[in-house]
Amino acid sequence: MTGRAARTTVHQFFKGHGLGNDFIILPDPDNRLALKAADVLRLCDRRTGIGADGVLRAVRTAESPEAAYMSGDADWFMDYRNADGSAGQMCGNGIRVLARCLVDAGHCSPGTLAIATRAGIRQVQVDHRTADFDGPVTVGMGRPRLPGPEGITVTAAARTWPALHVDAGNPHAVAFVDDLSHPGDLNSPPQVTPDQAYPHGVTVEFVVRLGPHHLALRVHERGVGETPACGTGACAAVAATLHTGAPPGTYTVDMPGGRLHITVLTDGSMNMTGTATIVAEGVVRLQRPCREH
Amino acid sequence: MTGRAARTTVHQFFKGHGLGNDFIILPDPDNRLALKAADVLRLCDRRTGIGADGVLRAVRTAESPEAAYMSGDADWFMDYRNADGSAGQMCGNGIRVLARCLVDAGHCSPGTLAIATRAGIRQVQVDHRTADFDGPVTVGMGRPRLPGPEGITVTAAARTWPALHVDAGNPHAVAFVDDLSHPGDLNSPPQVTPDQAYPHGVTVEFVVRLGPHHLALRVHERGVGETPACGTGACAAVAATLHTGAPPGTYTVDMPGGRLHITVLTDGSMNMTGTATIVAEGVVRLQRPCREH
Repeated sequence: MTGRAARTTVHQFFKGHGLGNDFIILPDPDNRLALKAADVLRLCDRRTGIGADGVLRAVRTAESPEAAYMSGDADWFMDYRNADGSAGQMCGNGIRVLARCLVDAGHCSPGTLAIATRAGIRQVQVDHRTADFDGPVTVGMGRPRLPGPEGITVTAAARTWPALHVDAGNPHAVAFVDDLSHPGDLNSPPQVTPDQAYPHGVTVEFVVRLGPHHLALRVHERGVGETPACGTGACAAVAATLHTGAPPGTYTVDMPGGRLHITVLTDGSMNMTGTATIVAEGVVRLQRPCREH
Repeated sequence: MTGRAARTTVHQFFKGHGLGNDFIILPDPDNRLALKAADVLRLCDRRTGIGADGVLRAVRTAESPEAAYMSGDADWFMDYRNADGSAGQMCGNGIRVLARCLVDAGHCSPGTLAIATRAGIRQVQVDHRTADFDGPVTVGMGRPRLPGPEGITVTAAARTWPALHVDAGNPHAVAFVDDLSHPGDLNSPPQVTPDQAYPHGVTVEFVVRLGPHHLALRVHERGVGETPACGTGACAAVAATLHTGAPPGTYTVDMPGGRLHITVLTDGSMNMTGTATIVAEGVVRLQRPCREH
């Protein structure tokens, strides 16, 4: 007989997503859960676990040694883990889903929440929802920068486009195209030149301008492949559009996974708005195998 | 603002898997849940739903018009739906996970359960489990047949092997190979000749004999690609091995997703034993969108 012995604990979880970017949320207000990389790998496995792009552990800042110094300004800390178990800094879709969960679970009231992340404190606006309506959630994404250099190009499907380097907290190359089909298969990375522009790799957006305040884009996410949506990519696309002389305001950005609205504030910083949906909640077994038969 | 309005209901769910073949189980003893294909698609979406290979709705046979005629012999009916929303007949890993769930949830006691499926009634043996040990679950898989014809071959990665046609409820072509790496990439279907042997397609197993009662295999599942495990494929591999003159008994069958034990009974029918694991339980929102903003 085959079996796996394990010490098992159960923990409350939620599963939710923003534009198909999906997360397992573990409320852990008192910081009692010593979440190991192996736990995250098991949780995020799409066949033998629940399955997700990452885990968001919600801890009260006052109870988290990592975030306690921010506890005067933010009540909750987002302990964001990538599906490979590594610690992440910030995720625009993740923090919107986390905020929706904190409100749905009764930990916070609708309105503005200050949430601590490893990239600093972010303000998240959670609207009221009804039983049948996932109200929008807005997060401040900061101000993208365009530090140059000039002369960047991206090549995909044997075509080459000029591109703009946008730093939206992580590096982006934004190319304007006539048709979103032209870049072809984006699971393999587009070629970006000059090589030395992005020593740590780059996320590439191919953007079509559909109207004065309306963009559509596809994205190759650094180290991942084509993804259904990218919050920082949407902001980078808007920043590149503004750089070409377009007016500020609120931009509608369509991606394969859904639609975001990006509002450009007077200081150049951006608010990102979109739905965040909690799909399921319950308890999950966290296992620590100790022997194989 | 973007949002989706929907009428929402919540329903209890479990998520579990057998050898990485994963399912969402919906206990519905009183047959109150009118589960639409669209519900199944949403539940099984691995990003915007919970994500699984299929849905197993557990209904008391006496309450199911589809299964009421079997209610004297089986208390529960497995309403098996594929991830595309279509109704399925029988799934060896699915029925083991369903049985484990019925016991874990307190609907049945450990021991032998008779479960009705669209392919008839199956006997499932669920062992006791402890809090930390997923006890094995055994299901009767019936008796595979080898109806011929002779002369079947399969070709993959520019190599060709002779193969045996095994009918294990669904059609299989079983080829014995020296090394499981030789068939190469099995996501695209191997070529099987003669064409007319399998008018509805075929699942192909490549099998290595590791010892007198020990097999390892990889499988290309008809219409799917390479899958981590296949219960009927494991039975087909054992049937093909017996056909070459090997003795009956209990075979250990290793697949990429894990290990099964196949016991050959005196009448040639087979019992399949392996772990079935419930990973999470809770409530899931079933949505019926009615408008887009």
